[in-house]
Amino acid sequence: MVTRLSHLFLRTLRDDPSDAEVTSAKLLVRAGYIRRQAPGIFAWLPLGLRVRARIEGIIRDEMVAAGAQEVLLPALAPREPYEATNRWTEYGDGIFRLKDRKDADYLLAPTHEELFALLVKDLYSSYKDLPVTLFQIQDKYRDEARPRAGLLRGREFTMKDAYSFDIDDAGLDRSYQTMRDAYERIFARLGLEYAIVKADAGAMGGSKSEEFLHPIAVGEDTFVRSAGGYAANVEAYVTPVPDALPIEGKPEPVLLPAADTPTIDTLVAHANAVAPRDGAPWTAADTLKNVVLALTHLDGTREVVVVGLPGDREVDLKRAEVAFAPAEVEPAGDDDFKRHPGVFVKGYIGPQVLGAESPSGIRYVVDPRVVDGTAWITGANERGVHVSGLVMGRDFTADGVAEVSDVRAGDPAPDGSGPLETARGMEIGHVFQLGRKYAEALGLKVQDENGKLATVTMGSYGIGVTRILAILAEAHNDEKGLVWPKNVAPFDVHVVATGKDSVAYDLATDIVAQLEGERFEVVYDDRPKVSPGVKLRDAELLGMPIVVVAGRNAADGVVELWDRSSGERSDVPVAELLDAVRAI
Amino acid sequence: MVTRLSHLFLRTLRDDPSDAEVTSAKLLVRAGYIRRQAPGIFAWLPLGLRVRARIEGIIRDEMVAAGAQEVLLPALAPREPYEATNRWTEYGDGIFRLKDRKDADYLLAPTHEELFALLVKDLYSSYKDLPVTLFQIQDKYRDEARPRAGLLRGREFTMKDAYSFDIDDAGLDRSYQTMRDAYERIFARLGLEYAIVKADAGAMGGSKSEEFLHPIAVGEDTFVRSAGGYAANVEAYVTPVPDALPIEGKPEPVLLPAADTPTIDTLVAHANAVAPRDGAPWTAADTLKNVVLALTHLDGTREVVVVGLPGDREVDLKRAEVAFAPAEVEPAGDDDFKRHPGVFVKGYIGPQVLGAESPSGIRYVVDPRVVDGTAWITGANERGVHVSGLVMGRDFTADGVAEVSDVRAGDPAPDGSGPLETARGMEIGHVFQLGRKYAEALGLKVQDENGKLATVTMGSYGIGVTRILAILAEAHNDEKGLVWPKNVAPFDVHVVATGKDSVAYDLATDIVAQLEGERFEVVYDDRPKVSPGVKLRDAELLGMPIVVVAGRNAADGVVELWDRSSGERSDVPVAELLDAVRAI
Repeated sequence: MVTRLSHLFLRTLRDDPSDAEVTSAKLLVRAGYIRRQAPGIFAWLPLGLRVRARIEGIIRDEMVAAGAQEVLLPALAPREPYEATNRWTEYGDGIFRLKDRKDADYLLAPTHEELFALLVKDLYSSYKDLPVTLFQIQDKYRDEARPRAGLLRGREFTMKDAYSFDIDDAGLDRSYQTMRDAYERIFARLGLEYAIVKADAGAMGGSKSEEFLHPIAVGEDTFVRSAGGYAANVEAYVTPVPDALPIEGKPEPVLLPAADTPTIDTLVAHANAVAPRDGAPWTAADTLKNVVLALTHLDGTREVVVVGLPGDREVDLKRAEVAFAPAEVEPAGDDDFKRHPGVFVKGYIGPQVLGAESPSGIRYVVDPRVVDGTAWITGANERGVHVSGLVMGRDFTADGVAEVSDVRAGDPAPDGSGPLETARGMEIGHVFQLGRKYAEALGLKVQDENGKLATVTMGSYGIGVTRILAILAEAHNDEKGLVWPKNVAPFDVHVVATGKDSVAYDLATDIVAQLEGERFEVVYDDRPKVSPGVKLRDAELLGMPIVVVAGRNAADGVVELWDRSSGERSDVPVAELLDAVRAI
Repeated sequence: MVTRLSHLFLRTLRDDPSDAEVTSAKLLVRAGYIRRQAPGIFAWLPLGLRVRARIEGIIRDEMVAAGAQEVLLPALAPREPYEATNRWTEYGDGIFRLKDRKDADYLLAPTHEELFALLVKDLYSSYKDLPVTLFQIQDKYRDEARPRAGLLRGREFTMKDAYSFDIDDAGLDRSYQTMRDAYERIFARLGLEYAIVKADAGAMGGSKSEEFLHPIAVGEDTFVRSAGGYAANVEAYVTPVPDALPIEGKPEPVLLPAADTPTIDTLVAHANAVAPRDGAPWTAADTLKNVVLALTHLDGTREVVVVGLPGDREVDLKRAEVAFAPAEVEPAGDDDFKRHPGVFVKGYIGPQVLGAESPSGIRYVVDPRVVDGTAWITGANERGVHVSGLVMGRDFTADGVAEVSDVRAGDPAPDGSGPLETARGMEIGHVFQLGRKYAEALGLKVQDENGKLATVTMGSYGIGVTRILAILAEAHNDEKGLVWPKNVAPFDVHVVATGKDSVAYDLATDIVAQLEGERFEVVYDDRPKVSPGVKLRDAELLGMPIVVVAGRNAADGVVELWDRSSGERSDVPVAELLDAVRAI
């Protein structure tokens, strides 16, 4: 049954909506695919719903082909399972909580590890039942702090989430690989370029995790990759640790005479002038910058921590969040300093007075490059005064190592596969080896081959359906509007009739019937009182892969054929149209 | 791709789950279609999801065929639109409310009249855009007080809700009829018997409403119907009003000497003994019973109201709820009586001291049969004393009329189509002519033919997808398990292989391939270590329309063929199997 624009519930806008910040939201609202209902909450209009359905179809297809079984769990979930894994608390403000009329606590689930683990516990009891991989396509909820990026960060959104259950690690490896392979096929079919990068398993508490990122300049995520095949989200980059150096024979530290050294470079120059090093001169990488961070722990307590890193590096707060998870991290403020009077001499902080065991009791952690035997220029905890040749493991120690430094182009890949380049991307999928964390917390055990109870090991695999749709719109558009890949376009062909008499309309109706006979999905712009200019602009904006315009030359049986993606336009006699459409 | 029970995420239970109260919940849980997650909240396992998908497919199909367009609105909805129509308050404890991190109010929408009205207001501006009918298939939420009936009264449930928008009443009539027709087709395809009954538009605030009820003994709704075609939910039954009688010439009321008359019958006998009526003797229908009800209004205030009805009738609290909506109604309690000291002489309440204008100020409303000129035996507001011949319109008056009396078999249909019979049913669909209530509250106006703004008139049409699934299970089962109608069964054919050697399995595998080649959907019980008894019991419990058992006679190429619905079983040579399956 043909869809006619004269009837379709659609209104296109000439201008970008004022409340949309990203290209995908602007275009999808302008083209009448979605409408905003509240911050991060959208209504799906007929065209948008068709794209969703096609994306869901591809995902479902590949999940089933990979042996996963579809189920559907509730969005409204009781508190207890999330309490058992501590996520009820860990999510902080990030989830929607509510009470029912009996004052019982519920949440709108942001993800379903707990409920899937309980479901398998409920149904299965033996290793013979495993492995099993379950999935659902379902609406999820997150109370995003800044839901301004349209569907990219919705508060109500649709996900395909899958969960694998295995008796042992080798099984989890296989299940994980199967899902990973399915994701590759899904993104290939969706026409979405991707990079698979190592990711931080972080809040999920897993042991291994990879992200599928779509490389795009406006991406929110930064990742690094080497020519030799290494790729990682910067949060997951692991700094190669240099070998420790011998401490013996290292010169004693030297207090540098006070001087005005407002920058690392001026400090390095000063040190090279007054206390030159044997061999190579001091460089910025030999200075030890001590940055004071404030952590907010889950129980609400606030802790001041100092991180020591080479002076040519900056603290990357996202990496610090991972390093100190689940605590929240921010630069320390005046209040934090006041709680430790007399400890910090700003600009001249040195590790000598720090450490959990020191009188200050303040934890001191260092970048992995700060290994035993390395000698540093750093603060002497006295206004204006620095010290050089301070040796790690002799003159100061640390409470631990933390990956807080930024990652840069040219840094080495940890696997030795060469220098890194950086790129930006958007997350389109995420696969986790969760291991036994959730199963342990929820008591998911089955009998093993020896009749003993064994804790199940889990994987978790997510694709945001509505997010993918937005990313497809980000990836496929031009100044005129959307340009849908064939596999997800709401219709294959957009037929436009223009002109005042019925010739073009009759021809278009005929063409529509022919195309539908050949099983093309067609939308037909038959609006009688809309100008040709508006119709053609709408055809560009809506973004179907193929546009057929019956207009000027309709009387001669000639129509214009557009390939929306290449931009090519040509006049085609109707008799040759079907072949030409098939060719595109 | 065949679904194998050795792999399917399924566990059947031999016994009814302890927390299920209704047949459908017991069977669906036992057969592994759903699992309870919290009160009124369920997980859908693979078999359940397949039935859902088929029901949704039929509904979607008929909606689209009827010209309705599919959209999808959020479940998480902002407070403001529901505030504008007063439903934020009216829903009372019946909905889930929550706040986001910025303290803004949201609800989990139980129905979407408001958001659809706003969506049409957002997109459309002219009568030329109308009519339009939109629908969605979506998860909805109600905080039911007693969510004990499985999917029949879920707290998270799936509905198809549709909304029509018209410029005038004639258009609404047409849109309503179109949806009503589509509903008839849907229920016919679902294999679900139905009666269309007049319903109370009640809380929806509409002008006309009909319910589709599935007649079933365990139904929660009572409805009445006449042989002449009248049918109504008892809440919607309208009592035929008798003609008023002349007051002039009616004898004066007579105080009956005190007597022990604990029942209506003893009172009638007493009256006939001490104050007989000219002509016919007094009957129970001539006594006026005055029942004290307590209303709780939306603003929380509590009001005592007295309803007067013939003594052979009882107050039907459900009908009273409709009569006094949106107030909640219950029998008055001791506290209510105490708030009106000296007014009520229990057992001897008469209307003489009642009425909004009386010193008591207590509203007095009457059954529609209590018309001017009717004479009654009723209480004299004095212990032990009744009065007879008290005439309505002369000796007492009422503040209004209310449909609070029960409706019974034998009562007349209001349209004169004969006496009523009563039946029980379950609501499977509901169609409303909402009129302009929502459009007015939300400012949904379009330009009419004269360029003036006109308020749009709306209809609302609902089918509970998950509820329908439960009702199908209630309607189609036997002592052995589920018996799915062909159009909604998760699979067409259930193939079972039994026996210790591979003969039956080889034959079954072959049969499965043949059936799939003919486009039947097949589930194959290939579980190697499960006993034949368990397999056959499971086949009965799961309820596929056709079961093929390859067992005892497999070596001779003979299988057993079950028609699950008729119960017929026959031995069939494999060569004839496809034809036999097709015949069922």
